[in-house]
Amino acid sequence: MNILIIGGGGFVGQKLAHKLAEGGTLRGTAISKIVLADIIDPAPVDASFPVETTTCNIADAASVADVLTGDIQVIYLLAAIVSAHAEEDFDLGWQINMMGAMHVLERARALGTKPVIVFTSSIAVYGGEVPDPIIDHTFLNPQTSYGAQKAVGELLLNDYSRKGFVDGRGFRLPTISVRPGKPNRAASSFMSSILREPLNGQEAVCPVEDDFLHYYLSPRKCVENLIRGAEIPAADLGQNRCMMMPGRMWSIRQLIDAMTAVAGPDPATRIRWDAQPEIKRIVSGWRFDLRPEKAIKLGLEADASFEDNIRYYLEDDQPAS
Amino acid sequence: MNILIIGGGGFVGQKLAHKLAEGGTLRGTAISKIVLADIIDPAPVDASFPVETTTCNIADAASVADVLTGDIQVIYLLAAIVSAHAEEDFDLGWQINMMGAMHVLERARALGTKPVIVFTSSIAVYGGEVPDPIIDHTFLNPQTSYGAQKAVGELLLNDYSRKGFVDGRGFRLPTISVRPGKPNRAASSFMSSILREPLNGQEAVCPVEDDFLHYYLSPRKCVENLIRGAEIPAADLGQNRCMMMPGRMWSIRQLIDAMTAVAGPDPATRIRWDAQPEIKRIVSGWRFDLRPEKAIKLGLEADASFEDNIRYYLEDDQPAS
Repeated sequence: MNILIIGGGGFVGQKLAHKLAEGGTLRGTAISKIVLADIIDPAPVDASFPVETTTCNIADAASVADVLTGDIQVIYLLAAIVSAHAEEDFDLGWQINMMGAMHVLERARALGTKPVIVFTSSIAVYGGEVPDPIIDHTFLNPQTSYGAQKAVGELLLNDYSRKGFVDGRGFRLPTISVRPGKPNRAASSFMSSILREPLNGQEAVCPVEDDFLHYYLSPRKCVENLIRGAEIPAADLGQNRCMMMPGRMWSIRQLIDAMTAVAGPDPATRIRWDAQPEIKRIVSGWRFDLRPEKAIKLGLEADASFEDNIRYYLEDDQPAS
Repeated sequence: MNILIIGGGGFVGQKLAHKLAEGGTLRGTAISKIVLADIIDPAPVDASFPVETTTCNIADAASVADVLTGDIQVIYLLAAIVSAHAEEDFDLGWQINMMGAMHVLERARALGTKPVIVFTSSIAVYGGEVPDPIIDHTFLNPQTSYGAQKAVGELLLNDYSRKGFVDGRGFRLPTISVRPGKPNRAASSFMSSILREPLNGQEAVCPVEDDFLHYYLSPRKCVENLIRGAEIPAADLGQNRCMMMPGRMWSIRQLIDAMTAVAGPDPATRIRWDAQPEIKRIVSGWRFDLRPEKAIKLGLEADASFEDNIRYYLEDDQPAS
């Protein structure tokens, strides 16, 4: 079992690689090799099998051909230009998020090896005038370029799978929190910052009100779901290989209360409230009342409580002080 | 008012040009010029204003730039690789139907003139495991490459419109019947042939059973709806600029009975029944129970009866014998 993680330098890619290294198998087969590819050389990961790191720009078909070789059986396509960045740089967003996905699919098709492709879509595909709750058959009505690009990626993945070129499966990720590391250019970045920075003894800014509702999943469950996602039998996916990844709806207040319940009252005092209209405009277009029935039937899971999300961060990610 | 019809050599493009020539106005403004562009030079159309004809390959961005100039206010993007053809030639389908749409949108964006773009999508965007009836918020779950490509076109049109680069509106065309001219490579081609050829005194083959249900619109109403489509105020389109074009559900038997009611019993005797599994496989994946509420609210119309469709063919299209 040889695995390629495109976006292997990102935090989900790194966590996924560590989890795969820990387990040593995927789809019931021992892992022989993982290749971590990203726009800059990913951090190495220790494992009992070789883990290669390499650069790849998915906007460039030749670069994709270099990393996606005939010996790869499972591809994780995690690389993306994130929401606020894609909103600012229209060309780059379409180049990476649409054409990048197309290049990976085209390369897989040219190889003829019918690899499994696990694609991370986003709940940003939902928006606009669609009724709540969001169910498995709800129209994708993205109100950001990022969401539109992910929706196109899903259509491509489904059609290449239907034609038998790849065995694709796509998962619309909730906002991942508590995300480790530094803030990024996702409009949702604050949804981790307001917990992570205070837990690490630093200040953070909350750009929305505390009754703001959103849909969350921990990095730990996300990675478990991505592994399960590669293992779902193709026949169980039916005529649409893309689905919501389960999460849970919580308010900013509930996130902060969970942090206080786990880590005491100090962290919450480090949050500064400072409304940012552009961030609020983007994230207010996202949907939060989602019912991921299909994914749950197929064995994917949400977190049990946001206290769990806080604990996972402290256990898995908090930098040693 | 200068209008560009891409796909202006096709039967919808030609009928649209004739109708615009007849009316002389669009969006309340006198038409100064129509440019008909197609992969082969379109037939000329008489009008009281200039009608230019030119070739254009939308797969080629430079070719699009040649025909889409800064003086164009309304673009009809009708050109497409049709269903069975896109199913056979995977590359060409994505090239024309996805990248072609992208080239038109990119060119419009580069011009900065924010033209109105009327895009013909298709009810082939519906399929797979979505419940009936199809409503305005039903998930697009295409089961053909053509359907997937049209769904991508919709996402592009919406995002370019949301960003203010174009004023797009997309309409998912029912199967157009009675279509004039010769059979084409659409899997739905027989849905006109079994009426048109018998009405013209020729034999035709019906590849499905007579209880096959489908969703139809006459060419005449289609063209009227495309004109109305350009005229809908942008503010009325809401957060999704693409919608069903109204049609009606009928069985093959009802089509034939309507033909008999209008033209007597002879034509029906010229239909030969010969099951074609590949055609049946494609068209059986299409949906027929559609409820185009939004479009009807915005003033688009279906035919009143299929007898009307037969009459329109005899009045508008039947070759002189």
